[in-house]
Amino acid sequence: MTALPASLSQTRSARFLDRYSIAQAMREQHGRGESHHTTAIPDAVIFAETTEEVSEIVRLCAENGVPVIAFGAGTSLEGHLTAVRGGVSIDLSRMSNIKRISAEDLDCTVEAGVTREQLNTHLRDMGLFFPIDPGANASLGGMAATRASGTNAVRYGTMRENVLGLTLVLPTGQIIRTGGRARKSSAGYDLTRLFVGSEGTLGIITEVTLRLYGIPETISAALCSFQSVEQAVAAAIQVVQLGIPVARMELMDRGLIQAINSYSNMTLKIEDTLAFEFHGSPAGVQEQVEMVAALVEENGGRDFEWANAPEDRNRLWKARHNAFYAVVSQRENAKGWSSDVCVPVSQLSGCILRTRELLAGCSVPAAILGHVGDGNYHVVFAVDPANHAELDEVAAINKAMVRYAISVGGTSTGEHGVGTGKIAYLREEHGDAVDLMVAIKNAIDPTGIMNPGKVLPG
Amino acid sequence: MTALPASLSQTRSARFLDRYSIAQAMREQHGRGESHHTTAIPDAVIFAETTEEVSEIVRLCAENGVPVIAFGAGTSLEGHLTAVRGGVSIDLSRMSNIKRISAEDLDCTVEAGVTREQLNTHLRDMGLFFPIDPGANASLGGMAATRASGTNAVRYGTMRENVLGLTLVLPTGQIIRTGGRARKSSAGYDLTRLFVGSEGTLGIITEVTLRLYGIPETISAALCSFQSVEQAVAAAIQVVQLGIPVARMELMDRGLIQAINSYSNMTLKIEDTLAFEFHGSPAGVQEQVEMVAALVEENGGRDFEWANAPEDRNRLWKARHNAFYAVVSQRENAKGWSSDVCVPVSQLSGCILRTRELLAGCSVPAAILGHVGDGNYHVVFAVDPANHAELDEVAAINKAMVRYAISVGGTSTGEHGVGTGKIAYLREEHGDAVDLMVAIKNAIDPTGIMNPGKVLPG
Repeated sequence: MTALPASLSQTRSARFLDRYSIAQAMREQHGRGESHHTTAIPDAVIFAETTEEVSEIVRLCAENGVPVIAFGAGTSLEGHLTAVRGGVSIDLSRMSNIKRISAEDLDCTVEAGVTREQLNTHLRDMGLFFPIDPGANASLGGMAATRASGTNAVRYGTMRENVLGLTLVLPTGQIIRTGGRARKSSAGYDLTRLFVGSEGTLGIITEVTLRLYGIPETISAALCSFQSVEQAVAAAIQVVQLGIPVARMELMDRGLIQAINSYSNMTLKIEDTLAFEFHGSPAGVQEQVEMVAALVEENGGRDFEWANAPEDRNRLWKARHNAFYAVVSQRENAKGWSSDVCVPVSQLSGCILRTRELLAGCSVPAAILGHVGDGNYHVVFAVDPANHAELDEVAAINKAMVRYAISVGGTSTGEHGVGTGKIAYLREEHGDAVDLMVAIKNAIDPTGIMNPGKVLPG
Repeated sequence: MTALPASLSQTRSARFLDRYSIAQAMREQHGRGESHHTTAIPDAVIFAETTEEVSEIVRLCAENGVPVIAFGAGTSLEGHLTAVRGGVSIDLSRMSNIKRISAEDLDCTVEAGVTREQLNTHLRDMGLFFPIDPGANASLGGMAATRASGTNAVRYGTMRENVLGLTLVLPTGQIIRTGGRARKSSAGYDLTRLFVGSEGTLGIITEVTLRLYGIPETISAALCSFQSVEQAVAAAIQVVQLGIPVARMELMDRGLIQAINSYSNMTLKIEDTLAFEFHGSPAGVQEQVEMVAALVEENGGRDFEWANAPEDRNRLWKARHNAFYAVVSQRENAKGWSSDVCVPVSQLSGCILRTRELLAGCSVPAAILGHVGDGNYHVVFAVDPANHAELDEVAAINKAMVRYAISVGGTSTGEHGVGTGKIAYLREEHGDAVDLMVAIKNAIDPTGIMNPGKVLPG
């Protein structure tokens, strides 16, 4: 542990009092996400309550060259929170005020620590919702920082499309606002999109202005079974190519269904499965359902099972959201290793086939699941973090999967972000454009205090 | 005129031969867009045919500190093309190859000089289209550079949402590729979005990868009349707030209708008018039409006139697209001054009302038109560019309109860009975030050769 500068310790007694911690357990909890990545603990944790406090902490850290890592809900998957050079973890979970909602303009402004479930609970009575849903009950600041998406992205887009503006604390402590409330603007560089997905390496997001949507008049969900993953993927691709505006279209392979049944105490049929959700007017949903049913049948799918009651639907999606935990729970004391790639839809079949070949001899439990409507899928492994041979084995499979995805025009991560886990692939994917990313990083954070060791190589 | 470095002149005889011009007329044509802004002519015009040629020219210019201005179709409206410090205009119009279309993945890659009409003509037989439509037959590189949008944005988004990746020539001459073909990615900083809307000040876009869409099964268009602009706007706002997925919803005030009738030889009813286009399945369009008709009627609208035959629809939208020229043609030897703002939809009525008050005493022909579904509208003035009193009068109206839009949470430009015309408002809109834009500009283009005098103040 590095000694923290005196000014930070003084801060403790003055402004932050009971919101400053150097307790080991607290620091450990803040030095990891939900995945297998090794914990690297920060030197201290401070719970900030306002943008101005974040600014003050960052300014003190900047003056003393102390690294700063923003912490939201702790649900990231690629090592984003590991304090590889120590420093201060700024916990934003107490910044949980919903500051403004406009039903007229279908937008809102929330503090970074507000979680997506908190926001949606708040919105429900107004007939509104925020669709981006990465599964975990992540903070909206964290979701913006990692450019998260999830099950609804095929219809509603990702955080890239749904963040209208940000309040940011820059590495100097300066507070700026980006974007605005207009639906579109050509006024200057798109700083909002630059910070969405920058993973805390350029500044800290303290407030987010988001697009909202009216809760659809009709919502309908269904599961259907296929004899192979290939058939399920073929059906999904045709749905995308015909432009049918499904809200969700999720692939779960039979291994995953088994894990979900056991973890969530369900009795889903143990087959390769597509789960759909349809949003729209009654007639619109009916039309979507008929088109999808025809495509499913053409591809050998069967047994459409409906979950139209809200409680059935919620149970289904909750089980899907718990897929990560379901896989991990198959093995005692295991940690999850979740990797995601995203490819052009025309390459999805080949890519998943290749991944299944890679998984064929894998010695640890693993499952494929994915937001196949976007060409995005995940592999979750349940690993023993102390078993180096096992970690090497999974790393090799991951590497082969990622490199294959890049080779067919895809990306090393569709929605989890780079963190520490995908840095090795950044140059393979983006070539010399990485130098431009580094130049921007150096211009904005010349001393490199913002979440060091993440996103960029070297 | 600055003397061009010898190396550039040598280039002329060597590589570019008949594609290098210092003729006055050619230079004048490249030193202006379509609007009132004063022409400032470049020292030379070079027609580039490949990304590598652009790179070579930029490298020569960089070595000699010569400004570089990219030129597409010359349809920009805020002085983007004026060579305020001289230099070389790189004309990209010969880079007009459509390099790749994937019907399966609904995407394509085109060279920067391909125009939107060229692309859509090419796509038609494949049942595909690219929806972004700013009116003018702009180049797709230029549309990306200015973050253009237009009539279809309410449903399909803007260039921000529809550019998947770019090939760029940086100020050093280095060629990089950003983004990719996956529908979403969390792999690193969003350089694509940083360059979309950067107006040639960070680099030159030479290729664009775009999202495509299937041509809707049913397309239907309609006009309806209102007794006041306020009524028309009220109806439009309700359509947005109910989330009805209209493809186009355009406001044209009665003055504009008069100008259009005269310019395009049409007989539209001279009333404040909303023009709609609906896309979808037959049932989906029917449903949208019924909902919109009810809202129109509730707000005092009447006389729905349909234009369902493709030729009628094309005539209608062509007339709408010619609105700018229609207003300008009302006066001999006039130039057009087109300003646009965009505000949260809840502020649109008040904003347009305020604009109409400002226009009440205006001494030159003027009309209001707008993509009201986005909260975006334009005022077009027909000015005598030699009459300074008149220019001052219009400048004052423009200033008051823009400042009002910013004061209610809007933006100084929804889709035209900053160019030279909106620089004065950038800090009012974005505050200290402008300093961050300047820092990024300085990091990427430290010698300031890329389209100097645009976007950023100072």
